[in-house]
Amino acid sequence: MAVNLPAPNPAELFPIAGVRLGVTEAGVRKANRKDLTVMLLDQGTAVAGVFTQNRFCAAPVQICREHLARTYDIRAMLINTGNANAGTGADGRRRAISTCVALAVKLDIAAYAVLPFSTGVIMESLPVDRIEAGLDAALADAREDNWLRAAEAIMTTDTVAKAFGTQLVIDGALVSITGISKGAGMIRPNMATMLGFMATDACVSEDVIEQLAKELAEGSFNRVTVDGDTSTNDSFVVIASNKAKHARIDSLDSANGRALKAAMLDVARKLAQAIVRDGEGATKFITIQVEGGKTQAECRQVAYAIAHSPLVKTAFFASDPNLGRILAAVGYAGIADLEQTGIDLYLADVHVATGGGRHPDYREEDGQRVMQQSEITVRVLLGRGDAMDTVWTCDLSHDYVSINADYRS
Amino acid sequence: MAVNLPAPNPAELFPIAGVRLGVTEAGVRKANRKDLTVMLLDQGTAVAGVFTQNRFCAAPVQICREHLARTYDIRAMLINTGNANAGTGADGRRRAISTCVALAVKLDIAAYAVLPFSTGVIMESLPVDRIEAGLDAALADAREDNWLRAAEAIMTTDTVAKAFGTQLVIDGALVSITGISKGAGMIRPNMATMLGFMATDACVSEDVIEQLAKELAEGSFNRVTVDGDTSTNDSFVVIASNKAKHARIDSLDSANGRALKAAMLDVARKLAQAIVRDGEGATKFITIQVEGGKTQAECRQVAYAIAHSPLVKTAFFASDPNLGRILAAVGYAGIADLEQTGIDLYLADVHVATGGGRHPDYREEDGQRVMQQSEITVRVLLGRGDAMDTVWTCDLSHDYVSINADYRS
Repeated sequence: MAVNLPAPNPAELFPIAGVRLGVTEAGVRKANRKDLTVMLLDQGTAVAGVFTQNRFCAAPVQICREHLARTYDIRAMLINTGNANAGTGADGRRRAISTCVALAVKLDIAAYAVLPFSTGVIMESLPVDRIEAGLDAALADAREDNWLRAAEAIMTTDTVAKAFGTQLVIDGALVSITGISKGAGMIRPNMATMLGFMATDACVSEDVIEQLAKELAEGSFNRVTVDGDTSTNDSFVVIASNKAKHARIDSLDSANGRALKAAMLDVARKLAQAIVRDGEGATKFITIQVEGGKTQAECRQVAYAIAHSPLVKTAFFASDPNLGRILAAVGYAGIADLEQTGIDLYLADVHVATGGGRHPDYREEDGQRVMQQSEITVRVLLGRGDAMDTVWTCDLSHDYVSINADYRS
Repeated sequence: MAVNLPAPNPAELFPIAGVRLGVTEAGVRKANRKDLTVMLLDQGTAVAGVFTQNRFCAAPVQICREHLARTYDIRAMLINTGNANAGTGADGRRRAISTCVALAVKLDIAAYAVLPFSTGVIMESLPVDRIEAGLDAALADAREDNWLRAAEAIMTTDTVAKAFGTQLVIDGALVSITGISKGAGMIRPNMATMLGFMATDACVSEDVIEQLAKELAEGSFNRVTVDGDTSTNDSFVVIASNKAKHARIDSLDSANGRALKAAMLDVARKLAQAIVRDGEGATKFITIQVEGGKTQAECRQVAYAIAHSPLVKTAFFASDPNLGRILAAVGYAGIADLEQTGIDLYLADVHVATGGGRHPDYREEDGQRVMQQSEITVRVLLGRGDAMDTVWTCDLSHDYVSINADYRS
């Protein structure tokens, strides 16, 4: 029951020249579900990634960082669901490396040209044998128009596959962008999401792909939260196959760089917001916009305090305009010199509070009307500066508890 | 359905000489429930309080701070449930002061000798007329052996009244201590709890009562959390009526000072833990002990990250030893230089993880056995120092969502 999140539109999932995807059912944790994906990249492809800031980062995240530090010549990615290979110590590292070696041997490339990704249950041993046994079938399935199947194969508790794409023209050349992501719990990305992959055939320099990975994550995945739990496995990877027929983009500050980034950010935001729309148990999609702060950082801090408050989230679930809970969250967000008398609160177009208290014209039925909608914007005006920031989140429902109480059963 | 929290034992609620309590049904929000309490203090009583750090602190919290700053000669407290008088701006301040004036006139004392406390719904106007109309009945009810009724009268979503007491002998004089508190949601006290009151007839200096308020809060209410939402109204007040027949205690570092503090801390912890045991929807009482940190502050930071994780809390609710979620929370607690390979995790006596990975002897059925208990201790060893700290929390259940989705209806 994702919030206003239809199934992916296949016509929008543009094949990216030089990027092939293959999927199989390897039985990593359960039988009869797509759980193993390979992405094969032509030589000359630029790749960059950002990863979780969780100090308990999973073994594959550690290996990804090491492989990306060693070379830009990444040629393959190997993604499994059903097991996160996190909280698995030195043995987990060995297992992640072992799957990279197995794929590298089949492709006749270096093991460090493979990036591994895992998602699923934490603190259980990765079944390397089943993953290796599935490689041939995944490789046989590899093709450029396989984004939808890959989006399905990386799902865990997601109810809807998440895939978006767009096209733009750069210097007369058609450039395609396609991306996939998955959620749906343990979501408060800190530098990246659970798993997100975006590819384009645009031609970009190594500096530009690095910068794109950081800036796209910052403008999309780093602004969503479901439950505030920063995952051990967050990974967001940006791929440019450099096949499009335009002059290489060497700076994001150029006209072409800005156009490419804007188009990619649009896709990245859709992917990130899709994770919230399909957040575990979500029934509402909530945009929290904090304005009038001294810095963007303090605006985001206030927005996250609201987005993580179980009391605010349950009020949204109940469509109950118990909006004092939002003020309370603003108050405990950690801004030491915040003056409550400077605060205004809007729910969509309804002016709820001013000067730190209830607005004289605010009527409960106006708050009620907005709360019943499935897409709600909360605006907080801090009244102390010109900075602003936005965070996207969902409500906290009975289904969130059910899903997470039953996840492993 | 509080966790191992029986109703208060009346034999343990010792009257405190010089402290009288009176209760009535003022109809603040709903009819037919005790919702207004007065506490009357004899002249010469020492009073100190600690209050919420929430910047959206309620009007009564602001007034309490101002009155306590002005004089130690506090003679009365006025407590209502049903309305928090928070998020009410300048009008809220006027209303809080107006109730203090009304009580002061009846008692022939200064208005600043009254401390006001409110708890309930945020961002609604305090019904001053109903509170003032209830004062005579509350005053008529005032007596020293009325702690149980007062504990009942300050309840909101609490299911069990919270009141504890103890006695000790100082220099041959019998000293009594009695306290009451209330929860049960918006609980992550930051300097104090929602509402907590403790009184003793011990003789102490003004410095000692100030120090006691801070240190008792630090060792009790500041270590519990239900949902991470720091309330707008947290208030913890410590009262010493100075009636006991022993020499005045001028330092907590004296033998008598230490004995008094230990006895009061025991009661304060019971009051604080009672709030968790009766946390909204709680089915488990969880002690989170973090050891081997560089500082006590980082230990508490890690303990709170675990205690606030919705994923950890739902796993406890489900009795599911999905313990990797605890490691993930340790990882995102914000300790930038934490090495996962140094981490050990115990669930009660079961060694779950070592060196950042699953312990070789750990068996799922051992974790399962502990998870099914109603009182569970989580021990995390950070392996980087000698500091430790403890936090108490509860699980996240369907009932938490139900209670908070329905709170105002």
